[in-house]
Amino acid sequence: MRDVAIIGTGEIPVDEHWTTGIRHLMLEAGLSAMRDANIESVDALYVGNMLSGEIVGQSHLGALAVDFMGLDNAEAFKVEAACASGSAALRVGTMAVASGLLDLVLVLGVEKMTDTSGQETSAALAGAADAEYEVSQGISFVALNALLMQRYMYDYGWKREDFANFAITAHANGANNPFAMFQRPISAEMYARSPIIATPVGLMDASPICDGAAAVVLAPAEFARALSPAPVKIKASAVGMAPLAVHDRKDPLALEAARISSRKAYAQAGIKPEDLDFFELHDAFTIMAALSLEAAGFAERGKGVQLALDNEISLKGRVPMATMGGLKARGHPVGATGIYQVVEAVMQLRGLAGANQIPGARLGMTQNIGGSGATVITHIFEAMS
Amino acid sequence: MRDVAIIGTGEIPVDEHWTTGIRHLMLEAGLSAMRDANIESVDALYVGNMLSGEIVGQSHLGALAVDFMGLDNAEAFKVEAACASGSAALRVGTMAVASGLLDLVLVLGVEKMTDTSGQETSAALAGAADAEYEVSQGISFVALNALLMQRYMYDYGWKREDFANFAITAHANGANNPFAMFQRPISAEMYARSPIIATPVGLMDASPICDGAAAVVLAPAEFARALSPAPVKIKASAVGMAPLAVHDRKDPLALEAARISSRKAYAQAGIKPEDLDFFELHDAFTIMAALSLEAAGFAERGKGVQLALDNEISLKGRVPMATMGGLKARGHPVGATGIYQVVEAVMQLRGLAGANQIPGARLGMTQNIGGSGATVITHIFEAMS
Repeated sequence: MRDVAIIGTGEIPVDEHWTTGIRHLMLEAGLSAMRDANIESVDALYVGNMLSGEIVGQSHLGALAVDFMGLDNAEAFKVEAACASGSAALRVGTMAVASGLLDLVLVLGVEKMTDTSGQETSAALAGAADAEYEVSQGISFVALNALLMQRYMYDYGWKREDFANFAITAHANGANNPFAMFQRPISAEMYARSPIIATPVGLMDASPICDGAAAVVLAPAEFARALSPAPVKIKASAVGMAPLAVHDRKDPLALEAARISSRKAYAQAGIKPEDLDFFELHDAFTIMAALSLEAAGFAERGKGVQLALDNEISLKGRVPMATMGGLKARGHPVGATGIYQVVEAVMQLRGLAGANQIPGARLGMTQNIGGSGATVITHIFEAMS
Repeated sequence: MRDVAIIGTGEIPVDEHWTTGIRHLMLEAGLSAMRDANIESVDALYVGNMLSGEIVGQSHLGALAVDFMGLDNAEAFKVEAACASGSAALRVGTMAVASGLLDLVLVLGVEKMTDTSGQETSAALAGAADAEYEVSQGISFVALNALLMQRYMYDYGWKREDFANFAITAHANGANNPFAMFQRPISAEMYARSPIIATPVGLMDASPICDGAAAVVLAPAEFARALSPAPVKIKASAVGMAPLAVHDRKDPLALEAARISSRKAYAQAGIKPEDLDFFELHDAFTIMAALSLEAAGFAERGKGVQLALDNEISLKGRVPMATMGGLKARGHPVGATGIYQVVEAVMQLRGLAGANQIPGARLGMTQNIGGSGATVITHIFEAMS
């Protein structure tokens, strides 16, 4: 089994890319990562994507990507695990390089969500939940998260405003990220005044529907220093699973798959949570940020929100999160999100995060959630330079 | 890098499963493979599937499968490469075991195509082609294959009837397969009288729309004999790619991805085509069978049809194909097909193919085609007992 490293990253701005097709999104992010890695060919290209069949009418994205990018000799598939598709593709790429079967692997996350109505996009996204037992009741992802947030507030006595800092922190960091969808800070007043989508989830609790693509190049760690001036090692790659439907989980607020996935990752990396310099978590909704902090061991049960209130999630806090804007402000093009998280983690570990740089960051974690918590994929990265 | 073996297989009858949901299809095939392997848990479950999001409204199949099957500790994703999704999932599973990261991996192919109108299914299937340049012209997969067949007949002087033996052989073999959709032989007259769908493709040139699921259990080859009385070694796992759109290929009749994929597989296995005891090829259409035989080195350019005319594709011929009915008679539930091919290959290599047994079969090849030939995945298997 070989250790695996990242030797290049690429991303395009998250936005509503009305005039750009999905093949161009993949091309720009993919070639950008290959330029960064200073390579001209790869052995494989694995695409993380959830909705291209439903929304764009294009399946078979692996073949489209290698064709349009001119990567004649690369094998290519799509990997899907709902909103964790990007990390799932990274997991596949990591296993491919670890096996010794392949050396250079491009892992690309892409999603084009705006080519249809918001209603149709929401319906397609609902396929990440249990179609027969949740979606058939009319549930959407906003509704599922609203139920979780309501229960959490009821159980632990939090108010809606207590979640504000998750959104405020994400927007503050997104303001310095030229690839973020929302590059402007928001205030506590803006959070409080934002319209409610599904009580108690407001507009500022939810990540946006958007388009994006991001990519990383993997190589055997043993060759990484020869290929890149600043490689980053994949110290852990771990998956946790939980029942697909929220009502089938013993404890809906426990985010059990995140707990399993984090624990496995810490064991693989041989570290404790407090050793991490930052944690790029899956803040698709503010409630998910709170639950993720708890599941990953940064807060006691019911206390995740306290970390936000205490500003411990800011760049200077104990657990910096959403350091380049997170899902809330950078945006959440679902199948691409897992790779955006990794690209941003690598930027931090290379010292390239500009105004958002965490001084001396050496060890970072990303966590990508599929559905309402059925699939959770965690990666830990370490600077090699 | 570890060698990988198959220690168990399972399948359900290919049919129109009107009253069975996709989770049950996965459950039955998956548990059947685990029973055959005599195991009660796995480290991972990779699902090959193309259309569950579009047709069933259910994405996130990996999470659904491990949830419903009670495989709490297994990581799970979906892998998609259009009609080659099943083999793509097998490729991922093979890399996972080869890497040493995982030991027992369940690879499951599933498709439920009949939960909507045939028209909608055809439209969803078209997503395997180039949506912007082929599908936007109104092309369907039947139409694409009709164009290829017409050109092939024009270039090489074949008549439509010359393709009959591909369908007749498939149906003759399917008649002895209790899991086949069509368990009845057809005659040359029935082929000749069958209605034309898109000139020159007739009903008997095309595989059916249907539902199905099949599964295999992978383990490190070094432990395989201890786990199974009749393990089968994966001697080669190889992917070839070609441009997504037919009009972008230098030679539309060359099936270049199949040529590349076959060559890689022969090199990995250290064999020549004539060493194989059988070849489970992707006979979604009779023209695809002819082109596959040529691309894999069994016939000269333009001469694939001659092998059918000479009966060399029958169980007693030089290149037995569709030994359990092939895509034509067993059926083609697209994302499951690649795994059905493997299940059938393993049956042959274990001597369990009943009336269709190829005496003394030791070495077999499967080949699974995505789209009109953009992704082609080839596996070679060898009996270990």
